[in-house]
Amino acid sequence: MTAKKNNLPHLHTVLTPQLLDLYEIHDSIVVIIDVFRATSTMATALYHGARKIIPVDSPELCIEMGKQTGGVTAGERDGKIIPGLSYGNSPSEYPRSFIENKTLVITTTNGTKLLHMCLKQGAREIVTGSFPNLSAVAHYLKQQKANVILGCSGWKNRFNIEDTLFAGALIQEIQDHFTIHCDSSWMAQQLYMQHKDHLTDYIKTTTHWHRLAAYGLEEDMMYCISKDVAPSLPIYKDSALVNAL
Amino acid sequence: MTAKKNNLPHLHTVLTPQLLDLYEIHDSIVVIIDVFRATSTMATALYHGARKIIPVDSPELCIEMGKQTGGVTAGERDGKIIPGLSYGNSPSEYPRSFIENKTLVITTTNGTKLLHMCLKQGAREIVTGSFPNLSAVAHYLKQQKANVILGCSGWKNRFNIEDTLFAGALIQEIQDHFTIHCDSSWMAQQLYMQHKDHLTDYIKTTTHWHRLAAYGLEEDMMYCISKDVAPSLPIYKDSALVNAL
Repeated sequence: MTAKKNNLPHLHTVLTPQLLDLYEIHDSIVVIIDVFRATSTMATALYHGARKIIPVDSPELCIEMGKQTGGVTAGERDGKIIPGLSYGNSPSEYPRSFIENKTLVITTTNGTKLLHMCLKQGAREIVTGSFPNLSAVAHYLKQQKANVILGCSGWKNRFNIEDTLFAGALIQEIQDHFTIHCDSSWMAQQLYMQHKDHLTDYIKTTTHWHRLAAYGLEEDMMYCISKDVAPSLPIYKDSALVNAL
Repeated sequence: MTAKKNNLPHLHTVLTPQLLDLYEIHDSIVVIIDVFRATSTMATALYHGARKIIPVDSPELCIEMGKQTGGVTAGERDGKIIPGLSYGNSPSEYPRSFIENKTLVITTTNGTKLLHMCLKQGAREIVTGSFPNLSAVAHYLKQQKANVILGCSGWKNRFNIEDTLFAGALIQEIQDHFTIHCDSSWMAQQLYMQHKDHLTDYIKTTTHWHRLAAYGLEEDMMYCISKDVAPSLPIYKDSALVNAL
């Protein structure tokens, strides 16, 4: 299972933001993963033609950047829209008819927090990944011949299953192109392979499902585990995520 | 999968020491898990009649405590005996003929470090667990009617598969006695159930296996994944682990 392809770039999986400092991110492309729902929403908004997405790490900065850019402000804490912001963290809020050519300024509980940690710690490049843009991200990573870190946003620094599942799905796609000497990565890949054929049932067993289902967000979550429904490649450049596809 | 038995005590799994501060350990029994090899060695030494085990967090303190207690000093860093100490971290070094009625003073890379973190953070009680004493620990935890945290020692704060597998094996035994609203715990249990019937092959795919196999420790590791070969119940009392069976 431990690859012996030592000439290939390395791949690691960081199971929660609290483990990020254990990894060498300065020479790695980091894939930010927040399945429920930040990176699924980002993939969707860019696929639907958003000009760019500015991820910020506080509601105050979100309001300020919204004013400066004329962008749509969006944010969620604990699954709910933040007072003072206009929209939430649901991919369904960003159809083409609404978001095309607009700038989205967004802050979320876990995903945008991890993205800013990666910026501060000097990641070589930042991409966001989710089931809706799985194949686009996989294709990109295979082309780059660079070390990769899959960064799971988790839930308030704890491990969560849905982000790990996506890391596993991505590893399953790209494993032949990397040296993987990382128990987290193999566990993620095995978890995905164990459950990939009954993902919609399995996801309902997770703690995050229960948390968001209490807000009536089942349909949102089903969308968030749908592969390749929003093919886009969000890459962070000049303080914003843009679609590089 | 998320238990609804809210009157039962809670069980959480901490995947690496770096995540310990996210959990409420002051009202929990913490099970320290370091499959390769600290807690397997501890179970074995106590099963073979060691009077007590004093876990310390530095080689210097190990030497000092060895002098004070007249005990056997043992320690390992990165899988090798520490210079200045007499023995290593292999269960095979502690047969009854050697260790009976002796005090063992031990320091290791991951397990004793986590144990000391739990002491400092005020765990209600500390027990050590490993495959060699799986059933004894499971039986004890079921009787206590108290919250439980399964603490995986990991590898230098990173996640590892073997400690998570043991957490999963323990959860499989005791899950009906606890409320489990913890993705880490369900992942561990699923990982164990996925691999339990081919554990000896599976364990050879882990990063730690490769690290220790390079030192010729395959037989040690096979012992460390053998269930109930050293039935003992190491509980921390008065600065030492004693066999409460």
